[in-house]
Amino acid sequence: MYDMAIIGAGPAGVSAAINAKLLNKSYIWLASRPTSKKVERAELIKNYPGLPDITGEQLAFVFRHHAESMGVEPSVGVVTGIYDLDGKFALLADGRDYEAKTVILCLGVEAAKPLEGEEQFLGRGISYCATCDGMLYKGKKIAVVCHDKRYEHEIEYLCSLAAECYVFPMYQNYDIKAQNAKIILKNPVKYEGDMRVRRVVYKGGFTEADGVFILKSAISPATLVHGLNVEGGHIVVDRNCATNIAGIFAAGDCTGRPYQYVKAAGEGNVAAHSAAEYIANLK
Amino acid sequence: MYDMAIIGAGPAGVSAAINAKLLNKSYIWLASRPTSKKVERAELIKNYPGLPDITGEQLAFVFRHHAESMGVEPSVGVVTGIYDLDGKFALLADGRDYEAKTVILCLGVEAAKPLEGEEQFLGRGISYCATCDGMLYKGKKIAVVCHDKRYEHEIEYLCSLAAECYVFPMYQNYDIKAQNAKIILKNPVKYEGDMRVRRVVYKGGFTEADGVFILKSAISPATLVHGLNVEGGHIVVDRNCATNIAGIFAAGDCTGRPYQYVKAAGEGNVAAHSAAEYIANLK
Repeated sequence: MYDMAIIGAGPAGVSAAINAKLLNKSYIWLASRPTSKKVERAELIKNYPGLPDITGEQLAFVFRHHAESMGVEPSVGVVTGIYDLDGKFALLADGRDYEAKTVILCLGVEAAKPLEGEEQFLGRGISYCATCDGMLYKGKKIAVVCHDKRYEHEIEYLCSLAAECYVFPMYQNYDIKAQNAKIILKNPVKYEGDMRVRRVVYKGGFTEADGVFILKSAISPATLVHGLNVEGGHIVVDRNCATNIAGIFAAGDCTGRPYQYVKAAGEGNVAAHSAAEYIANLK
Repeated sequence: MYDMAIIGAGPAGVSAAINAKLLNKSYIWLASRPTSKKVERAELIKNYPGLPDITGEQLAFVFRHHAESMGVEPSVGVVTGIYDLDGKFALLADGRDYEAKTVILCLGVEAAKPLEGEEQFLGRGISYCATCDGMLYKGKKIAVVCHDKRYEHEIEYLCSLAAECYVFPMYQNYDIKAQNAKIILKNPVKYEGDMRVRRVVYKGGFTEADGVFILKSAISPATLVHGLNVEGGHIVVDRNCATNIAGIFAAGDCTGRPYQYVKAAGEGNVAAHSAAEYIANLK
């Protein structure tokens, strides 16, 4: 079991991971990609104190370099579920699971609002994790709503299992090789069903399915952690970056405005210190 | 009148000042010295993300360089009083006064706890400002408790006015040239008086005085701002770095632990954004 599970590789995640290491805590640092896409894409950052007029690409580089120079590197994995097991937490990422005493959520704010029915049917036919739940739909009819080209190999895996496979690529230049994939160029608007999900509804029609896989890197915090206090899309934290769930902390854009790199880095530091203090008080 | 008055040149102050400029606000940035002594003295900082293994001296340099590259420079001055004038604030620094719509306190935590009687007699014989109040004691008997060699010229000014001048140098290698200065090598422990201060008490004795000047760069926040909510020596702020007084914000070590450079820089950013929002809502 790790002392800390840190999720996200933006400024908050990097800062939390560096401090986990310096605080001599065991940690697993999980991120959907090794550096933050949002940081990389910034044109010019003028207010990260000490690094004047730095491009996003440069800032992402120095963050990564700083962490690497300390032997701190993220494991690439999309965390699709965090479960409170009474005193410890289980995290599911790409079909593997991890246990940690504390969790630091550095999720950013890119998470699209879940569609109608998405949270309702999660675990009842809707899954965020192909490798976790794919086998449940062997020989059945599935729909895959894919938000990023990086997950096309998961589409292929799912199509290899399913009898029928309907794919909604939500990005440009898709290249889906599975023979049985039926591409639908529509944006899903909601999920419908009864006790379980039954239909992916889009403008002008719907697709029936036994299971629906939604492949995306940014899952909304409330969906990721059952019972987490979220207001206006932001995780509610106190001055110590503690959430309403003891042992879960949050830092960076996911905790609210201003969406600023140094604010995020500062909160990552605070969250790591708070998590260390929480662990020290565990008994 | 300035939009923002920023006090302090540590990471929080630099960050607030940079953002005041970028947010296109008018500001006065006041600090007792151009860079933070605390930052400069740090041996090696390993957790300021993006700048691995940097010495305190280097970090102070890059902070100063960043600000200067944007034409942002502090005015050197010790702020000895902040007054809430119903919708605006007056600041007194080295005998000059400034007006601002908002104040961002980035005071650090170096402030020594005030001695017994210090707050009680402030404005009733005790003063933090030689140039403001010196003339009131022309031809009288004064005591000067000086915490830093940099203020020796103020001792000389005060001695030039007073009939009798008792000086408590609270540092090494003092060099006080005033002919009438009577040096007392004792640490004051409290101030006593009736309606006004009358005595500086030290272990084994006391010195009588009509006025007492306490010359130091770090004045406790509660002393600086009447009515400011302070707990355990830290200014109480919310997630937006707002204090209990509308229009006054605080950032950095003065708001509490962890005492970390990037936490302070992050809060300076947040405080500047909050102050800008406050100004926008002023009407």
